[in-house]
Amino acid sequence: MSTYGNKVKLTVFGESHGEGIGAVLEGIPAGLKLDMDYILTQMSRRAPGKDKTATPRLEKDVPELLSGVLDGVLTGAPLCAFIRNTNTKSGDYSNLLTVPRPGHSDFAAYVKYNGHNDIRGGGHFSARLTAPIVFAGAVVREYLSTMGIKIAAHIYSVGSVNDKPFDPVDVDDKLIEELTSSAFSVIDKSAEDRMRTEIYEAQKNLDSVGGIVECAVKGLPAGVGAPLFDGIEGEIAKAIFGIPAVKGIEFGAGFNAARLKGSKNNDGFRFDGDKIVTDTNNCGGILGGISDGMPIIFRAAFKPTPSIAAVQNSVDLTTRENTTLSIKGRHDPCVVPRAVPVVEAAAALAIANII
Amino acid sequence: MSTYGNKVKLTVFGESHGEGIGAVLEGIPAGLKLDMDYILTQMSRRAPGKDKTATPRLEKDVPELLSGVLDGVLTGAPLCAFIRNTNTKSGDYSNLLTVPRPGHSDFAAYVKYNGHNDIRGGGHFSARLTAPIVFAGAVVREYLSTMGIKIAAHIYSVGSVNDKPFDPVDVDDKLIEELTSSAFSVIDKSAEDRMRTEIYEAQKNLDSVGGIVECAVKGLPAGVGAPLFDGIEGEIAKAIFGIPAVKGIEFGAGFNAARLKGSKNNDGFRFDGDKIVTDTNNCGGILGGISDGMPIIFRAAFKPTPSIAAVQNSVDLTTRENTTLSIKGRHDPCVVPRAVPVVEAAAALAIANII
Amino acid sequence: MSTYGNKVKLTVFGESHGEGIGAVLEGIPAGLKLDMDYILTQMSRRAPGKDKTATPRLEKDVPELLSGVLDGVLTGAPLCAFIRNTNTKSGDYSNLLTVPRPGHSDFAAYVKYNGHNDIRGGGHFSARLTAPIVFAGAVVREYLSTMGIKIAAHIYSVGSVNDKPFDPVDVDDKLIEELTSSAFSVIDKSAEDRMRTEIYEAQKNLDSVGGIVECAVKGLPAGVGAPLFDGIEGEIAKAIFGIPAVKGIEFGAGFNAARLKGSKNNDGFRFDGDKIVTDTNNCGGILGGISDGMPIIFRAAFKPTPSIAAVQNSVDLTTRENTTLSIKGRHDPCVVPRAVPVVEAAAALAIANII
Amino acid sequence: MSTYGNKVKLTVFGESHGEGIGAVLEGIPAGLKLDMDYILTQMSRRAPGKDKTATPRLEKDVPELLSGVLDGVLTGAPLCAFIRNTNTKSGDYSNLLTVPRPGHSDFAAYVKYNGHNDIRGGGHFSARLTAPIVFAGAVVREYLSTMGIKIAAHIYSVGSVNDKPFDPVDVDDKLIEELTSSAFSVIDKSAEDRMRTEIYEAQKNLDSVGGIVECAVKGLPAGVGAPLFDGIEGEIAKAIFGIPAVKGIEFGAGFNAARLKGSKNNDGFRFDGDKIVTDTNNCGGILGGISDGMPIIFRAAFKPTPSIAAVQNSVDLTTRENTTLSIKGRHDPCVVPRAVPVVEAAAALAIANII
Repeated sequence: MSTYGNKVKLTVFGESHGEGIGAVLEGIPAGLKLDMDYILTQMSRRAPGKDKTATPRLEKDVPELLSGVLDGVLTGAPLCAFIRNTNTKSGDYSNLLTVPRPGHSDFAAYVKYNGHNDIRGGGHFSARLTAPIVFAGAVVREYLSTMGIKIAAHIYSVGSVNDKPFDPVDVDDKLIEELTSSAFSVIDKSAEDRMRTEIYEAQKNLDSVGGIVECAVKGLPAGVGAPLFDGIEGEIAKAIFGIPAVKGIEFGAGFNAARLKGSKNNDGFRFDGDKIVTDTNNCGGILGGISDGMPIIFRAAFKPTPSIAAVQNSVDLTTRENTTLSIKGRHDPCVVPRAVPVVEAAAALAIANII
Repeated sequence: MSTYGNKVKLTVFGESHGEGIGAVLEGIPAGLKLDMDYILTQMSRRAPGKDKTATPRLEKDVPELLSGVLDGVLTGAPLCAFIRNTNTKSGDYSNLLTVPRPGHSDFAAYVKYNGHNDIRGGGHFSARLTAPIVFAGAVVREYLSTMGIKIAAHIYSVGSVNDKPFDPVDVDDKLIEELTSSAFSVIDKSAEDRMRTEIYEAQKNLDSVGGIVECAVKGLPAGVGAPLFDGIEGEIAKAIFGIPAVKGIEFGAGFNAARLKGSKNNDGFRFDGDKIVTDTNNCGGILGGISDGMPIIFRAAFKPTPSIAAVQNSVDLTTRENTTLSIKGRHDPCVVPRAVPVVEAAAALAIANII
Repeated sequence: MSTYGNKVKLTVFGESHGEGIGAVLEGIPAGLKLDMDYILTQMSRRAPGKDKTATPRLEKDVPELLSGVLDGVLTGAPLCAFIRNTNTKSGDYSNLLTVPRPGHSDFAAYVKYNGHNDIRGGGHFSARLTAPIVFAGAVVREYLSTMGIKIAAHIYSVGSVNDKPFDPVDVDDKLIEELTSSAFSVIDKSAEDRMRTEIYEAQKNLDSVGGIVECAVKGLPAGVGAPLFDGIEGEIAKAIFGIPAVKGIEFGAGFNAARLKGSKNNDGFRFDGDKIVTDTNNCGGILGGISDGMPIIFRAAFKPTPSIAAVQNSVDLTTRENTTLSIKGRHDPCVVPRAVPVVEAAAALAIANII
Repeated sequence: MSTYGNKVKLTVFGESHGEGIGAVLEGIPAGLKLDMDYILTQMSRRAPGKDKTATPRLEKDVPELLSGVLDGVLTGAPLCAFIRNTNTKSGDYSNLLTVPRPGHSDFAAYVKYNGHNDIRGGGHFSARLTAPIVFAGAVVREYLSTMGIKIAAHIYSVGSVNDKPFDPVDVDDKLIEELTSSAFSVIDKSAEDRMRTEIYEAQKNLDSVGGIVECAVKGLPAGVGAPLFDGIEGEIAKAIFGIPAVKGIEFGAGFNAARLKGSKNNDGFRFDGDKIVTDTNNCGGILGGISDGMPIIFRAAFKPTPSIAAVQNSVDLTTRENTTLSIKGRHDPCVVPRAVPVVEAAAALAIANII
């Protein structure tokens, strides 16, 4: 199902080249006043066409609110937002899948749906489906902020270029503000140029490049979550893997913890006034599936955009022969900059389901 | 909840030092004949006390089947297995939490349960709870094998020592057989000695060490899974993060894909006879959340055992002052060897829920 | 949540006097060709304005398909249908709830949503929300019919006027065809006039009247369902109580079985050729929560429309004093005739989730 | 699945003639002190063997608490209780189903489980499975009582003999106390004799008799529940139909509301001091799926025990011929008296999931 969550539930629908894309969000308490400026800011961070790192396709992406809101205030009924597609070039695609694109869902979906899925622009598998996720996430983040919970992410790396990581024990409010109002969210401003260069280089070579997004959740009190299968890690992972192109997630020291000794990895406790804190945060704010009061820190790995102009090996499903293809059309050489608000949105959905 | 799955549902209960631990497994079709030899083999791979790499605590860990089976055959009703605790040294622990252990759930659970959780041996948070998971996983794996699906994992790394990775496009049946009947599952037999040395070194230094488990699911046909939030990655991740000490998961090229170009990361298709295959498997057998017919390959990162004898900083919850502690009792210096069948079990549960 | 089902999932959104109402339907296999004639027939059976028994408000109620369908065929992605509201008289209502209407959700919803719910026309609580349920139900019924499962309901009673009940062991295909293409579905045609008279009488007296809908599911094979909490009765009941105004449900002999002896109530088995059948169907086709191969038969009780023009006692939430009110606006004196296809739709959703 | 609930989750396992029966209860907050006297009282109300109205089979039915409790206080981990079977006469039954009993699950389950289900004493379908439900319900009721919510039920009717119904607007605390500490819960004490006579008469005639249980939930505040598919009625119905032999449920005026005019059925509001109340309670305390602050009132119809000694028609599944059977063994001529605490327990589970 294209649905996430029990307590706060998101249902995503739509296709890249169909009538449009949308979200139904349930479970946010009545009375929340929607901050449309904030919501549209978040959506524009994800929106394409801002610069050369992203696809030049322009979508206004202004959601129409079909239900659940009255005079700008949530009524408690399901909130449905719809974004009508306006700028689809149907000539670029047809619904006849003959040569599946490597790294794309084409082949797997073809088998699952027996060839009936809408493949124009990737259909329901398109990264465009992240727009309603960002919309819903923005609403959820507004709701979480009423509880003092703030979420921000940044481009941790693009290819081999790294940003400065979060200080895992002290995620500054001002930094959160900056990151979540930027279209290219980095902590070390000087990283932007190097990252853009990496992206343009890939593009110039008819190629693409992957990267990592790091996300922090600040303000989650200690004692939230559960052991075993309802732990915070699993809940966030389920939401984050809902984002197309994510192939890995790690919390705190993550994969590096596997190379550490316990004496290095353990985060010792101490009192900071009346509050119990840790000086390191290798656990990423989560112990036994439950929050310890420090920031939740995680990183999500994005693979390089599979749509590249270079010639690739594939098969022809009609003639049943090996063949090659080169993908035309408008594609991001790197999805990572636009993925930042999507990661924040998915994290927000997860947190709203455990708090 | 200590529950996983909708189609095949596992509920885990029990505590390390209580009456015992158990599992209720629902959704496996009636008629499956339990292979108790196989099940006990899997459980013994996880069981402690086999050698110096594991805690010397000895538990027979023979599950009593309380329901759901008649004359060794599943009836279709919930299957309940219970393992009574027999070898608990209650003197080692009391239920008065005064100094939470760094890296453990103690503090987070104390806040969540308002001090009412059973902390003796970690209570419900104990790694001992993985025994019923392995039991259930073995039953699920029997069921999956009737569909031609086989699952095997190995110790990918311990600290800085690596095993040979799986060949991601050709996971050999004989290798699966070997790995799943071993108590120290490695592909390159020579890695065992080096890994054991790493573990003993850590132990000697009153320390512990982490590691990575790599898992392969072979035989899952193409077209299984779903886009967005019901993708295979998210389903497996939810199950795997249910295992204590897991802090990261990656599929196929995983975090390394984030450093790759699309031209390197994409897995080109070709015909192998009538079957469509790929020569690389950077996607880990999953595209758009759906299987492509190649093996599912993923790696889970385990942090080092938090219980170490070295002196660590912590707080006294009673006196509200900073203090230190050194953990006595019986603990594995490395959980990774015993975690291998647990990862296989959790993967099996995930696969049974999407097929 | 305004969501039903796990295997086939329906999410309903919208308000009576907002932008519109809609449905997202997930889980129907790709490849089903939508029969829009059939779907619109079902929706018109529910639609108001056909005659004096229903509210004169006219809505075209033609759903716009926003996603999940391509060239009239389901793609496997979520199917979203939206019905824009066109004929709302906003003057009839405002969003200031001062005097809650007896028998309506006004007061209960006011407390739950802290006064933020949209009360215009009942908002999300309006019976108008059954339109997307009928849409989704029609799609589900098309899907079920590919498995030989047919569903039909009729007006079992209006006030004191009864229709002929179903023959519980032999629901005729021709009868199913007739009932499901009629806007006033009765088995005994002569009942229609008497029922209409009952309704007009109530209306003339500024009153309303309740009734019972009886539903049959034909073609469900034996062996579907589950014991205890996943039994067919519970699954159907959950769906049927999702319909506004339903206050009771019974299967087979139902409440009458409580007055019977076992020797009368038990349905003896016999062979009919190679098939095992029963000559009575007091169990309503369900034993131990599982189908026995006979038709599923159930009845749902609808309370009389709470909106009546007669003077009623209520309270003024602003002045905190007792008061009276008389409800103006357009309302059905009896919802039962229009409820027939809604019951069929809800039954279809339930069956699709257990098969 | 034999599982109910999301927020508070009950998993039931076991068979009538297997090792035993049990429950796993999750989601009750840590810190609740178990009142074992209360729990055992509730279980003894359901237990057989008290008098001639019930089966003479004697089970101590004292649950062993396997997990989730320490020093009598809930720890927050899953609470598992197990009741070992001690008094099964295996000679009465074998697992060879040749002649399915009319009115029982035998035939339906035989088809579903392909003959692998345990049929001894009904196996997992046995009414004995209601013992763990009552156990869990008693714990849940303790938890609800900390919020001021009390639940009581009584034998509304046995065959044609009626008890006095609840006063639907004023369920007295003393009455609740009396009903929930009685093994034959009636409001009008004089009804007991007449009901017992009805039951003994049936038994004497080798027959059985059905009945109705009426249940009241007092203290649920207004504003709890949800519209459409998550309404209180649907939630309670799902739990109540989980009880074997239930064939109908109605809320408030229920099926009788279908025969009423709106002017009679609507419950007018008025102020009682500062509280808004109604003088009638035809809605059963639920409007639009949400509580209105009045008692929740519902009735569940139980069919007569299908196991009767009289000769009945059935089929021989081996010879594939029509035959007859007469059921020996120990069976209640009427399940209704013992069903009262089961209904209370199921109602408690439902309420705990919506509050």
